This record gives sequence, C-alpha cells and structure tokens, in this order.
Amino acid sequence: MNNTDSTKGTVGVLRVLTQGPEATAVHGSIIEERYPRLETVSRCIDDHPDGIPTVEAERAALPYVKSLAREMADQVDTLAISCALDPAVESLQKELSIPVIGAGRAVSHAALSLGNKVGTIGLEAGDPPIVTETLGASHHASRQVQGAETTNFLTTDDGRATIEATANALVEDGCTVIAPVCTGITTSGVVPSLRESIEVPVVDPVESMGALATLVARGSSD
Amino acid sequence: MNNTDSTKGTVGVLRVLTQGPEATAVHGSIIEERYPRLETVSRCIDDHPDGIPTVEAERAALPYVKSLAREMADQVDTLAISCALDPAVESLQKELSIPVIGAGRAVSHAALSLGNKVGTIGLEAGDPPIVTETLGASHHASRQVQGAETTNFLTTDDGRATIEATANALVEDGCTVIAPVCTGITTSGVVPSLRESIEVPVVDPVESMGALATLVARGSSD
Repeated sequence: MNNTDSTKGTVGVLRVLTQGPEATAVHGSIIEERYPRLETVSRCIDDHPDGIPTVEAERAALPYVKSLAREMADQVDTLAISCALDPAVESLQKELSIPVIGAGRAVSHAALSLGNKVGTIGLEAGDPPIVTETLGASHHASRQVQGAETTNFLTTDDGRATIEATANALVEDGCTVIAPVCTGITTSGVVPSLRESIEVPVVDPVESMGALATLVARGSSD
Repeated sequence: MNNTDSTKGTVGVLRVLTQGPEATAVHGSIIEERYPRLETVSRCIDDHPDGIPTVEAERAALPYVKSLAREMADQVDTLAISCALDPAVESLQKELSIPVIGAGRAVSHAALSLGNKVGTIGLEAGDPPIVTETLGASHHASRQVQGAETTNFLTTDDGRATIEATANALVEDGCTVIAPVCTGITTSGVVPSLRESIEVPVVDPVESMGALATLVARGSSD
C-alpha cells in the first residue's frame, strides 16, 4: 500500500484511452471530488487513441489491460477499470489480491439498486454485453448517442447536447433510472447537469466505481 | 429540499428499530463519516423495540414504514430504508419522487460488483428474500450469527466476536466478497475491524446506501 494519507484509500484508475497524463487523470479527479475519502493514481494503456469503441476492439485490448493492471496493483488499495465493457475485470478479480471494479458492473448494479426500469445511454456500437447481462429484465430501454463513433465526439458541445436529448427520451420511455454505459460520457462532463435537469436518478459509470472503492476502503476517517 | 449546506445532499435514514434519538442517529453518522458529501436526518418507526427480525414481522411493519417514509420525503433529497429486508422499498420507489434506497438491494448489488462468490452474514432467521433473489447464482455461501435472535445481541462483545468468526468461516468457504445482510451488524460497529482482518472486500448494508445516495446527489462540491 502506498497511501500518503492513511485516512484515504488509494484507487488505481486504469484508462483504456491512450492520452497524456492530464487527460488520463480526468476520471480520477471526478472520483476524488465526489468521494473525498479516496485519492487516485491514473494510468492509461498504450496504442489505443480511440479507446475501446467495440467488443471486437476489446479483445485486442485485453493484454494491454491485464499487463497494466498487474503493474498498478502493488501501488493501490483498489483498482478501477474505467471502461463499461469491463475488459479483463472478471479474470483480474480472480487473479489480484485487491478489489477490482469495472465501470460496467458498477453502474449497472448501482442502477438496479435504485429502480427496476433502467434506461441506458450508449454509443453507436450498442450497450456493453456485461451491462445487458447484468440488467436483465430490468433493462427497460436503451438509446444510443447518435454521431458518436468514438468517445472523443462526446466531449464536444454537440456531443453533450446529444447526450442530454438522449436522456430525456429515455425518461419519456418510462425509465426510472438513467445509466450512461460508456465512461466517455463521464469525460464529457454532462452528467452533473443531467442530474439537475432530469427528474429520475442518474448514475455515472466512473462515479459508481468511486462509490464502491469508498465502501471497501480500510481505515477510518477519524 | 431542505439542505442547510447546498454542496451536500440530505439523506433521510428511516430506522425500523424503535429507539431514542441518539441510537436512531447511529446509521446516519456512519454514512456521514464515510460519505462527507451527505448529511443525514434520522427517524424511527414506532412500536418496534426489536426491529424487524423476521419476514413475518416485516408484514406488520409495512404500514409504519410507508407512513414515516411519506412524512420524511418532503424534507430530504434521498430516502434510505435502513433494513436489509427492504420493507416497502419497491412500492416507495414507485410512489415517491425522490430516490429510495433499501439496504438489502444496496448491499447485494455492491457485493455483486466486486465478485461472483458472495458470502452473506445474516441473523438466525436467515437471509432476507430480496438478498437471496438479488444475489442469485452468485450467492456462494450463507452463514448465520449464532445466538442473535434480535439485533440487540449484535452490539454486545459476544455478538461482535461471533460476527468476526462467521466472516472468517465464509472466507474459508471460498467466498470472495463478504456481505453482512442485517443492518444490526452495522450498528454493532464490527465492520471496520472486519475489513482490517479479512483479506476479501467487506461491504456494509448501511454504508452501501450512503454510496448510492452520494452517487445520485445533485450539485457540485466545488
């Protein structure tokens, strides 16, 4: 363990989008803001400037994710794989001695705790299989952000407006909980304003991992 | 909304054990300590000095829970029903305009996010049906705290030692996540020391509700 502050748990945030250090740290900062008992250390896999936009791309990325996860595991208390496809999450949970959290399972289970008519917002490739499987019969509706072939689109003004329109359509579909199921939607920064404008609870895939990392953190804040 | 601090979300903690104000506030204090973006308001139902120890007792308590929940709903941003049987949770989620969280669903879904061999610690009456249903095939083992006919036993030294022995037995059973499924175990105060002594993640039913309430809280801490 590498805690500089013994009252805080250290979360390793593994990003699947290859970027510079500042952009790589964005998810970690969002986690720290909402969950002050955590500090984060962020790293990204190599060779993936468009992230993991599809299930096919996921297969190619698995060795990168596993290798980086093993490198990070010694320095952190909890590992958060910041992609809703949950690449390598199940095998890393078995292999590593620290808790491993995937954004897909985290956001799906958070949504299920809050209601049984979950509406998901995904990219054009559709919902991650782990999300579909986890939500099961409580998956009330699914809508895709039009025009988002990669996560980079989501951080534009057009992208944010499209996400908001998609969420509103899901509420009209009768959904009682809204779950973006791509961590690129977190990066876009639109989730806090969605929460203000939409009546039903909105869960976020990155923040859901922070919720769980706080839950399993050892030590007391006293 | 009744926030005294606009950066914080207010959680109504509904207790199903009839007690004085100080004891009633214990779960709320535990939530606030781990999730500093929340402030809590706690109230308990009348006429239940032994809580809701069984499914039969739950039926009799439902009108009390619903009535108090309706009273509290106007003053809080989120309502947490602090009992793992999730009494009235599904109907309150449909009825009320704020997010309603039950300890049973919250702790079960948190556990499922962290692994697929969940071990539950319950009272002698067995696991709450909502927990069994939610965990499904991932419910690897279940053990009861011997001697705990009511939640009051759990706050004694004997009760705490028994909980710790039960958790250790579940790890020996091969469980990869431990989930106490009675909020009386939270009250006992044993969960933080369980986390220190046990290798696998330990999720807590009351803290799991705080995790979710933070997740859906509106506003920014900036």
